[in-house]
Amino acid sequence: MDEATAFAPGHVTAFFAPYPDDDPARAGSRGAGLALSDGVEATVRRVDDADAATADSAADGGLAGLELDGVPAEMEPVRRVLAELRVVAEVEVSSEVPVGAGFGVSGAAALATALAANEAFGLRRSENDLVSVAHAAEAAAGTGLGDVVGQFRGGLPVRLDPGAPDHGRMDGVPARPRVEYVSFGELSTERVLGGDLDPVREAGEAALARLLDSPDERELVAAGRDFAEEAGLLVPEVAEAVEAVAAEGGLGSMAMLGRTVYALGTGLSDAGYDATACRVDPTGATLRPTE
Amino acid sequence: MDEATAFAPGHVTAFFAPYPDDDPARAGSRGAGLALSDGVEATVRRVDDADAATADSAADGGLAGLELDGVPAEMEPVRRVLAELRVVAEVEVSSEVPVGAGFGVSGAAALATALAANEAFGLRRSENDLVSVAHAAEAAAGTGLGDVVGQFRGGLPVRLDPGAPDHGRMDGVPARPRVEYVSFGELSTERVLGGDLDPVREAGEAALARLLDSPDERELVAAGRDFAEEAGLLVPEVAEAVEAVAAEGGLGSMAMLGRTVYALGTGLSDAGYDATACRVDPTGATLRPTE
Repeated sequence: MDEATAFAPGHVTAFFAPYPDDDPARAGSRGAGLALSDGVEATVRRVDDADAATADSAADGGLAGLELDGVPAEMEPVRRVLAELRVVAEVEVSSEVPVGAGFGVSGAAALATALAANEAFGLRRSENDLVSVAHAAEAAAGTGLGDVVGQFRGGLPVRLDPGAPDHGRMDGVPARPRVEYVSFGELSTERVLGGDLDPVREAGEAALARLLDSPDERELVAAGRDFAEEAGLLVPEVAEAVEAVAAEGGLGSMAMLGRTVYALGTGLSDAGYDATACRVDPTGATLRPTE
Repeated sequence: MDEATAFAPGHVTAFFAPYPDDDPARAGSRGAGLALSDGVEATVRRVDDADAATADSAADGGLAGLELDGVPAEMEPVRRVLAELRVVAEVEVSSEVPVGAGFGVSGAAALATALAANEAFGLRRSENDLVSVAHAAEAAAGTGLGDVVGQFRGGLPVRLDPGAPDHGRMDGVPARPRVEYVSFGELSTERVLGGDLDPVREAGEAALARLLDSPDERELVAAGRDFAEEAGLLVPEVAEAVEAVAAEGGLGSMAMLGRTVYALGTGLSDAGYDATACRVDPTGATLRPTE
């Protein structure tokens, strides 16, 4: 097989308690979120050794070229995944969710690339192994701390421990609601994750304790809404939208970390927003079957 | 909500090393299998307290009535799930795969019942909690030792440890092949699991070590085929079908524990069998969304 394609769901973090670590497989966060049926597809195409030498792609960490929605782009976690797997490939990424807006596109691209590369190159790695490679690539690149493991599990994933599968236990909220979202633009994950993490961690731990006490989808979003306020992460347009949803009896919050509001059911359209509707993705990241 | 429906995939165990335990949450098996897109649906319908008293269903462990494919039936793991969740309900189970033939129908029914009951009664249990309840119900009933956790994960699940989610780590083989199967009738799980388990455990451990060394779908089935021979579990019709598949260049084995043969791709139809075709289920057990 010369190429393979995999899908990873978009992942909106409801709340999180960050735990950085020098070991990227142990770095991560506790918290919870929503895996969405809107997500990211990555197609990995083998580049043979002769072409690779010409393209000088050994120095390029195994990435012979990357397009994001048809345009040449840089995605450091994807480059790190291919380097770690010791393969040289071209990668085409297409995203149904906006980039840089809190949907974990970089993590989804890294995870889908790992699954597709395993298939295209016949690497015979296990799922935990591939998830670990993608999680560590994302943590080392500084682009996220918990999306990858949530995107692999699917549903409404709860991260009981930080880190890759060998280190981090997971649970989930067994509900599959409809979700709406509106995005107002980008917000720098690196900037927020580079600041003082103590208040974020404290608010995140409180939100997780609350959710585990009563795990359902409304508690997940409500705990996320209080977390966003307590951690001081709310941005003005999102705060306004969250209030507008509540005024109509709905429940919404801010995607961590993005200038994005999401709501259960028809919360945003009821409040007059031109929202995108999707569902909770029940499956998690998976190889696209070939016939 | 008065009722809810959940799906759990059929699960063919390729090989297993059984580890019984007095604590049904710790009892289980190490091993690997295939979650199938053909599976089991359970609809749980609330019975209110007045009706429950009339039906004397408190003594009946919470099960006010069960139909399997439209016919009144007994399923002890389902009864145990409702008793453990302390709810009284009617349950309708429908199965796309044959019962008693190695597809884990009892485990699938228990797991789908747990997920649907959580939704219908608003129990606010987490996914791990519901999987544990279903796993323990199945282990206590003596009807299986590893289907439930595999059915929750989906894909090609690998059980690294025995037991429910709090005790047992899992991994998976990241492939999603087409699968064919033919069933020749029932085989008693209880009878086999009641015999001498040492040779089965030894063959199961060898098969698991082999798969973990090179995790792909062909190794999974080939390790299962050797396990079936070494553990002395092959039955004549199945052995004949496995050989017929191999003679055509295909790869198949016996479903543990059932009088059933399965094969990758078109292995059984190539060998002239009138086989049922399905895919590996990527999702695992999940609530059916309501709109």
